[in-house]
Amino acid sequence: MVVEDPAVSRRLDGLHRESLLSIDGIVQANPHAPGGVEVHDAAIEVVVPTTGSPALDLSRPTLRASPSFVLDHAPVALRHPRLRARFEIASASMFGFRTTLRSLDFAEVQMPKIVSAATESGASVFSIDYFGRQAYLAQSPQLYKQIMVGVFERVFEIGPVFRAEPHDTPRHLNEYVSMDAEMGFIADHFTIMDILTRVLGGMVEAIRKDAATSLAVLDLSPPDIPATVPTLHFSEALELISRETGERVQDEMDLAPIHERWLGRWAQATHGSDYLFVVGYPMARRPFYTHPDPARPRYSNSFDLLFRGTELVSGGQRLHRYEDYISALRTGGLSPDPVAGYLEAFQCGMPPHGGSAIGLERWVASLVSASNIREVTLFPRDRQRVSP
Amino acid sequence: MVVEDPAVSRRLDGLHRESLLSIDGIVQANPHAPGGVEVHDAAIEVVVPTTGSPALDLSRPTLRASPSFVLDHAPVALRHPRLRARFEIASASMFGFRTTLRSLDFAEVQMPKIVSAATESGASVFSIDYFGRQAYLAQSPQLYKQIMVGVFERVFEIGPVFRAEPHDTPRHLNEYVSMDAEMGFIADHFTIMDILTRVLGGMVEAIRKDAATSLAVLDLSPPDIPATVPTLHFSEALELISRETGERVQDEMDLAPIHERWLGRWAQATHGSDYLFVVGYPMARRPFYTHPDPARPRYSNSFDLLFRGTELVSGGQRLHRYEDYISALRTGGLSPDPVAGYLEAFQCGMPPHGGSAIGLERWVASLVSASNIREVTLFPRDRQRVSP
Repeated sequence: MVVEDPAVSRRLDGLHRESLLSIDGIVQANPHAPGGVEVHDAAIEVVVPTTGSPALDLSRPTLRASPSFVLDHAPVALRHPRLRARFEIASASMFGFRTTLRSLDFAEVQMPKIVSAATESGASVFSIDYFGRQAYLAQSPQLYKQIMVGVFERVFEIGPVFRAEPHDTPRHLNEYVSMDAEMGFIADHFTIMDILTRVLGGMVEAIRKDAATSLAVLDLSPPDIPATVPTLHFSEALELISRETGERVQDEMDLAPIHERWLGRWAQATHGSDYLFVVGYPMARRPFYTHPDPARPRYSNSFDLLFRGTELVSGGQRLHRYEDYISALRTGGLSPDPVAGYLEAFQCGMPPHGGSAIGLERWVASLVSASNIREVTLFPRDRQRVSP
Repeated sequence: MVVEDPAVSRRLDGLHRESLLSIDGIVQANPHAPGGVEVHDAAIEVVVPTTGSPALDLSRPTLRASPSFVLDHAPVALRHPRLRARFEIASASMFGFRTTLRSLDFAEVQMPKIVSAATESGASVFSIDYFGRQAYLAQSPQLYKQIMVGVFERVFEIGPVFRAEPHDTPRHLNEYVSMDAEMGFIADHFTIMDILTRVLGGMVEAIRKDAATSLAVLDLSPPDIPATVPTLHFSEALELISRETGERVQDEMDLAPIHERWLGRWAQATHGSDYLFVVGYPMARRPFYTHPDPARPRYSNSFDLLFRGTELVSGGQRLHRYEDYISALRTGGLSPDPVAGYLEAFQCGMPPHGGSAIGLERWVASLVSASNIREVTLFPRDRQRVSP
């Protein structure tokens, strides 16, 4: 806006940044102006003057402040174009997740977050006083989405999950957004991996289409997912790491983050892929509902999807026979009583089924190469932080 | 399926309902068969036999059991076509809500559910032990969606909200799904009502398109929303009720359910409309962020949408000036400290804005004329019930 009247100029000088103005003037093309146009002869109305300068200077190309200062002032910091861009990518990702699954006949459901039984592991739940008795915040919609396979056959949910682990790492949050899907009548976990591959493709496409400006602001291009994602069995992965690095890892029951990173580099070097499926994790470390590999029951019909060497998605086939649940719970030393409703679904017939869960924040963090997941979370909750 | 082989017939006789079969046979048209086709010469594989009969007979046109028995056995009851149909309508409603708002440039966000401050009223929150300090479950995304107007200008969320009121009525839940929207640069609450009217139209359209089978199962047609919804000011509504019924209600500060029902019948009789906006509720009963009517500051720029005489949506214009918040908090005897982050957004400039919230379950209950909201909630949470 070109202001020639010194009286107007003086009035604007007195305003702080982020004040809201209403401007009525004549727009003229000017190739030298930022944006290609200028406004002349403007009548200016100050709609909302701010009462001081923002805690952060939003006009700089990047925010110059410590990460914790930025989080403390999230209500203002999120207005910065580079921060806002990340959440436009998150928004487009959710849209792509939904539209792809809807096109595959998945029904959207919203499942309860206050639950009577801890499901994944007793140590990591938030408990609440629920009218005088103990209840918990859902760690995942796992049990409910399986129940819903008996109703809709294919379901999905995008919603919050709550983990009470007192960890303090750059990649964990105590509340995050989980994008869950679950489907029936599958052959095995490879059916789930096929659907997941399409869903990730749909998410990348939605980002490209809906968040093009944000991609430009961040100077990013989202990583296309190959039609066939390279896949390693867990035991092959360990052998490969042992052979190539000389480390003795053959007897491990899980992949350490350092080995996931190694495998990420391997997938990039060998297959030119940002993505890698690792299948067949040992049963010993997987939750009770995990379906074993019928040919090698020590291993499971489960998978992780690594993206650039970080676990992005977990999934797999679940048990579907009632008797198998009873024996899995017994093996795990778990009581069937708290999950009686869940078990009723299996007593009444459930097809072979499975699903996966994508952490929204982890997905966006990978895309924008954020060094800390808090940078891609609107209002992160961790051990220290429950506000703003 | 036509089974002629007595051996096959005997095998099937031994199966309980809800067992899963894989059938490979020849499909023949037969106008007398249910569905118009029959399968002959079938090879039948029993994929998953059930271990007993379901607690509920799903083959009857309606479930014959007490409401609480149905809720206790939700994992099976939800498979009944009439119950499943309701949740297909819920799913289509969410889709219509989202697509309409996306077409109007609203961005989808997911806001935190663990919060440090109770917002709506201290008595009605669930508190949780958050790593040794007290935190709460969000009663609504209200404060966060307002903050996000400063970031995206127009935002929406579909997510759970938690209310700890110990009520026990057919229309309250302690956890429900809230469909929230909030936008900036509005004239007043009428801008919000205009957007809401379009959103409800989009929801009805989505139900008609995506849940046609469910509408047929339930023998329903969704109520079209008129281009202009009849609108009464709160004071007019009271005068009308007083004049027509002879009751003295002119000094009331809110509408009682019985008066809402009366107004619903009035809107139907006078305007042929299932919907009625009541605007301008007294400030005294509205939350601290409510914007007063500039012409009559005793009344607010707020509204309720009544659907068939029941409150379905609340909304309105919010305060947008920092000083107004400070004085509203002071008037309400509330401390600004717990909402410091929220207030920072207003210190840094916020446009005139407002929004609304639709309770998903209440919407579906109205559509299907459910007598109890629990009948349209997958796994309802009330004072007595936190499972399955």
